[in-house]
Amino acid sequence: MSDPDRLTRPGGRTARVRQAVLGAAGDLLAESGLAALDLSQVAARAGVGKSTVYRRWESVPGLVTDLLAEMAESSVPRSDTGSLLGDLTANARLVRKTLDDPRQGTLFKALISAATTDRATATALHRFYAVRIAEWVPCVDAAIARGEVPAGTDAVEVIRAVSAPLYYRCLTTDQALTLAAADRAAEAAAAAAQAGAFVGHTVD
Amino acid sequence: MSDPDRLTRPGGRTARVRQAVLGAAGDLLAESGLAALDLSQVAARAGVGKSTVYRRWESVPGLVTDLLAEMAESSVPRSDTGSLLGDLTANARLVRKTLDDPRQGTLFKALISAATTDRATATALHRFYAVRIAEWVPCVDAAIARGEVPAGTDAVEVIRAVSAPLYYRCLTTDQALTLAAADRAAEAAAAAAQAGAFVGHTVD
Repeated sequence: MSDPDRLTRPGGRTARVRQAVLGAAGDLLAESGLAALDLSQVAARAGVGKSTVYRRWESVPGLVTDLLAEMAESSVPRSDTGSLLGDLTANARLVRKTLDDPRQGTLFKALISAATTDRATATALHRFYAVRIAEWVPCVDAAIARGEVPAGTDAVEVIRAVSAPLYYRCLTTDQALTLAAADRAAEAAAAAAQAGAFVGHTVD
Repeated sequence: MSDPDRLTRPGGRTARVRQAVLGAAGDLLAESGLAALDLSQVAARAGVGKSTVYRRWESVPGLVTDLLAEMAESSVPRSDTGSLLGDLTANARLVRKTLDDPRQGTLFKALISAATTDRATATALHRFYAVRIAEWVPCVDAAIARGEVPAGTDAVEVIRAVSAPLYYRCLTTDQALTLAAADRAAEAAAAAAQAGAFVGHTVD
């Protein structure tokens, strides 16, 4: 309780330590992938004591889980443009900006790679996407309310349909993730939703 | 020239060696990923002399490139059901079957992971997808000719739109890749194509 930050701004120092450690973890993941991630190295890069990092995050999976939680918390909120195509275009451009960013794009690729073999990373990554998709679901619900798309449209699947071609393009081609590719992803998802392609199936 | 296979079936032994080596390479990749792939281990598992493997494939990237070439060559040819939705559904079910197969699914995840950090694997993987997508492009061209979708529809993007949600589902959720998910992917791509969502943009 002698730490002045603890007295004046509750959580201030704790929050700063978390930011420094998660920033360092993200940098190292983007640079070298999950296999090279090491708590001591993260502590050194963050300028934080090793014992603090081990006490608070315990393990690499614990650190990756918190990193993804923080990425979900700090992500851009959904748009409300008044039309489904407008909202999905905003979503597609945001996904494109993230994947096209050198640090963020590499970080996501590293996490997706790690999740294919590491169970804890997979669980944390799936939770991240569930949070991000849920954030944009109200755009589809609003479109249903406006009568733009049929009642019974699976909103989660519509939002996923916007991201899917952008990730697929990144992972299976060497073509640039252009703004036009993002806009087309939004347009295709909106058109399919309007045609009723996301109604009626049970895909789970 | 004393090998009887060489005399009676030209290429017979060479083809069998290739099959054994690529089969062993695929097994090892599916089990342990690219980082663990080693030409000596592949030779041992295939029951083929080490010097043969080193002479013919030279390196791990050389082996992965040939494995992906062989996977593209031996893949199922496109369907011709007479309708775009029928053809895209056949394509989606084939992609689903591959990703849902324990060995094949794991192998693709290992290759996609490796491609995020290894340039040679990425080049070979991108070539694989280009070949597979090109195989199904005539389905869209036929749909244009039948007047099912507008002239100027980007056939490559339509075929990619079928696979994209299936890969995205595999990589970012723990939900099963159901037949209904495959059928919906086909239906969404067909509906978007019919609505003209794949006309007019330049996305490259």
